[in-house]
Amino acid sequence: MDPTIRNFMDEDPGYGLPIPLGGVVRGMIIGEVMSSKAEQVVPGTMVWGFGSWSDYVVGPARQFFALPTPLAYDLPVYAHAMGTIGLTAYYGMFDIAALRAGDQVLVSGAAGAVGSLAGQFARLGGAGKVVGIAGGAEKCLRAVRDYGYDLCIDYKQLDSLSSSLKAAFPNGIDVIFENVGGAQLSLALQYLNKHARVALCGMIDGYGNHDRQPSKDALWNLVIKSARLEGFLVSNILNHKHRTDAMLAQIHQWITSGSLRYDLDVRFGFACIPRTFDCLFSGQHRGRLVVQLDDALPSCQL
Amino acid sequence: MDPTIRNFMDEDPGYGLPIPLGGVVRGMIIGEVMSSKAEQVVPGTMVWGFGSWSDYVVGPARQFFALPTPLAYDLPVYAHAMGTIGLTAYYGMFDIAALRAGDQVLVSGAAGAVGSLAGQFARLGGAGKVVGIAGGAEKCLRAVRDYGYDLCIDYKQLDSLSSSLKAAFPNGIDVIFENVGGAQLSLALQYLNKHARVALCGMIDGYGNHDRQPSKDALWNLVIKSARLEGFLVSNILNHKHRTDAMLAQIHQWITSGSLRYDLDVRFGFACIPRTFDCLFSGQHRGRLVVQLDDALPSCQL
Repeated sequence: MDPTIRNFMDEDPGYGLPIPLGGVVRGMIIGEVMSSKAEQVVPGTMVWGFGSWSDYVVGPARQFFALPTPLAYDLPVYAHAMGTIGLTAYYGMFDIAALRAGDQVLVSGAAGAVGSLAGQFARLGGAGKVVGIAGGAEKCLRAVRDYGYDLCIDYKQLDSLSSSLKAAFPNGIDVIFENVGGAQLSLALQYLNKHARVALCGMIDGYGNHDRQPSKDALWNLVIKSARLEGFLVSNILNHKHRTDAMLAQIHQWITSGSLRYDLDVRFGFACIPRTFDCLFSGQHRGRLVVQLDDALPSCQL
Repeated sequence: MDPTIRNFMDEDPGYGLPIPLGGVVRGMIIGEVMSSKAEQVVPGTMVWGFGSWSDYVVGPARQFFALPTPLAYDLPVYAHAMGTIGLTAYYGMFDIAALRAGDQVLVSGAAGAVGSLAGQFARLGGAGKVVGIAGGAEKCLRAVRDYGYDLCIDYKQLDSLSSSLKAAFPNGIDVIFENVGGAQLSLALQYLNKHARVALCGMIDGYGNHDRQPSKDALWNLVIKSARLEGFLVSNILNHKHRTDAMLAQIHQWITSGSLRYDLDVRFGFACIPRTFDCLFSGQHRGRLVVQLDDALPSCQL
C-alpha cells in the first residue's frame, strides 16, 4: 500500500496513466511466477515489481526482480526495508540529499514506512542531529523510541511548528527528507543552511488535494541559501542492479547487526484493501502497510 | 542596479542585513582605489566588488577584485558581461543547470541583463532550443533579434502562457534558468522532462511582494520528473579566482569572436538613482542598468 497510488486515481496523475473508474489499481507486488516464456525466469521463483492489485499479473520479465533463494526474510520485509521502501529511503538520503557526517537532518512523515528508515539511515550515516515531524503524540513517541530520532515534532500543533523547528535547529538545517510537502515544507525551508539539500520523496499533504500551496518565500529561501530541492522516484534506480544490490547489502548488514528497526503492519484479504488503503491517509496503521493474499487465510481482517 | 537590492529593503531580506530607513544602500560597484593599507592593493587600481551607493567606500581588500590593466573594455562592461552578470549567467547555466548539448531550454526575464546572456550561453553551449519569456512585444522582439532566442513568449499574455509553453516545447523542457518566479515558474514546471534542472537565479516577481505563491502541483512535478530546483548566488564563486577567471576568459573569447551581444543602459548622476532603480521593476530600461558617477558629467539624466 503506497500513498502515491492515490495520485494514479487523479484524472492527470502526472506520471503513469490514470486508473479509470472500475479499473485495476496498479502498485508494488510480490508474487510467485506461475508460468514464464522467458528462459531466465523459472516458475516457482518469488519476484517483486510493479504490478496491480489482482490475483494474477502478466508482464514482461524485465518488470520483475527475483527475490533471493532461499529467502533471508519473511516475504513482507521485501516490501519494506529489503525492497522499494528501503531503496527509496537509501537513495533519497545518500544519493539525492547527499548526506554528510555532522549534517542537521529533518525528516517529515518520520513514523511512516519511508521516514522510519530515512531517519535511521541519517543516523547510521553520521548525521549530527536527526529530527522528525509526525502527526500526533503516539507517532512522535515511536519516532524517538523505535527509530532513533533525537526529537520529533507533532505537526498537528501547526501553530507552533515554525517555532518548534527553530528551537530544534539552532544551527540550521542541512538536509530535509520530505515525505509530506505543503505547509510543513514551506516552514522548514525557512531554516535551511547554505548549500542545504532537500530530497523530495513525496508530498502526501497534497495527494487528492491540489489547493495547498507553499509560500513564495519558501522558494526564495532556495536562492538566498544556494540550496537544492530535488525530486526522485525509486524507479530511477530499479534497473541499475549493481546499485540496488549494494544498497540492499548495506541495509541487510544494518538489520543483521541490530542497527536498523523496521515495522510491518500486515493485513489479510483482498476484500478489505480499500479500507486498508485509506489507513495511509488517516494514519491508522503502524509501519509499512502490506496486504497479504492467501486463500488459506481469512478473507478480511481489519 | 540589481533587482535583488530590493530585497535588502525588506525588514527581513533573508540574506545580508536589512537597510534601515535612511541607511546607505548596498550594491555592486566599480571604483578606483584612492588609498590602501593593503600592500597588494595599489592606489589608482580599478576594482569591482560589493560596496554601497556612495561617493567613497571603505572595506577590507578581500572585498574587491582588481580589473585588468590596461582595461580591455569600457568600465560599465565590467558591471555586465565581464563582471557579476556574466558570471551569474555562466555559473547558473553551466554549473547549476548543467547544460548539455541538445537541451530544451527556457529562460525567464529573457531580455534582462542576466537573461540576455543566459540565453546566448545556452545556444553557445549547444542547446537544442532556447525559448525566452519576457514582458511585452518589444522585449520579446529584442530577445529573438538581439540575443538569439529561437522564440520568446510574452508573459503579459498570462492567460495563454501555459498553452504557449506547451506549443514551444513539444519535447518538454530540460533546463529552466529562472529570473522571475511566481506564476511563470509554476506553469513552466508542468512541462519538465525527466531529470530536468531548474537554476533559480532570481524571483523578481516576488520582490517587495510576499503574497505570490507557486501552486502545490508545481513542486509535485519535481517528484514525478525526478527534477532539481537549485538556487544560487554568484557570491558563492567570487572567491574562487581560478573558476571566475576561466569563466571570464570564455566570455571574453565569445565577445571578441562576435558571438555574444550585451547591451548597456548607462545613466548618469547620483541624484537620479532612485528613479533609475525603479526602472528595473517597471521595465523602462534596455540592457544592464548602470549608474555612472563622475563630477565632470551632468548630475541627473533620465
